[in-house]
Amino acid sequence: MPVLHYQDAPVQVPAEGIERRLVHTAKLLTAVLDFSNGPQTEPDPMHSHPHEQTSYVAKGEILFFMEGEEPQHLKEGDLFFVPSGKKHCIQLLSKTARLVDSFSPVREDFL
Amino acid sequence: MPVLHYQDAPVQVPAEGIERRLVHTAKLLTAVLDFSNGPQTEPDPMHSHPHEQTSYVAKGEILFFMEGEEPQHLKEGDLFFVPSGKKHCIQLLSKTARLVDSFSPVREDFL
Repeated sequence: MPVLHYQDAPVQVPAEGIERRLVHTAKLLTAVLDFSNGPQTEPDPMHSHPHEQTSYVAKGEILFFMEGEEPQHLKEGDLFFVPSGKKHCIQLLSKTARLVDSFSPVREDFL
Repeated sequence: MPVLHYQDAPVQVPAEGIERRLVHTAKLLTAVLDFSNGPQTEPDPMHSHPHEQTSYVAKGEILFFMEGEEPQHLKEGDLFFVPSGKKHCIQLLSKTARLVDSFSPVREDFL
C-alpha cells in the first residue's frame, strides 16, 4: 500500500525523545521526526551525510545551523535544505517539535 | 540562505485555490502546497511524472488515488508515496488542506 497512516506506522526510536516514521521510493525517503526532548540549551552536534536533505517544520520551533551560515529561527511552515556533505544540526526551542525530513538518495541507515 | 520562511516565501499559484512554496537542492525538491478549493466532489484528473514523490499531509483530509490501489483516506500526519511514472491524484475532503510534496529529481517545471 503506497501510504503510511501515522497511527499505525512502525515507530523507530533513533535516540531518547525522538520518534521516526518513514516512507520511501527507490531514490527518495521521507521521515516524520517527533521530538519530545526540548527545549535544548545547546545545539545537537553538527553532522553531515552525502544525501541531500530538505526539511519542513510541521510543529514547534527550532534553530537551524549549517556551516558557513547564520543560525536560523524556524517555526511551523518553514523549510530548510542541506546540500550533500554540508555540516548541519538543529536545536529545539520548544518542548516538542515535528520535522518532516526528506532525503535523496534513500538513507539506507534508516531502513 | 538555506531556509525558506513561510511568511516571506515567493508564492506560486499553479491553479486557482492552490498556493505553492518550495525549496530544492540539486536532486531534491520539496513544495508546500496550500489548497483552499475543497471540499471536492470528485478526484482531480489522474496524472503521472517520471519523478518519484513522497507527500506528507500537514493539514486537512484527502483521498489519495493511485492506479492499481484502493483509494486511501489520509489526514494530518499521514504520508503517501508515488513511484516513477505511476498515475495518481487526490481529492480534498476538507475545505482547506496542506500537503508537503517532495520529488526526486527536481521538478524543473516548478522552477
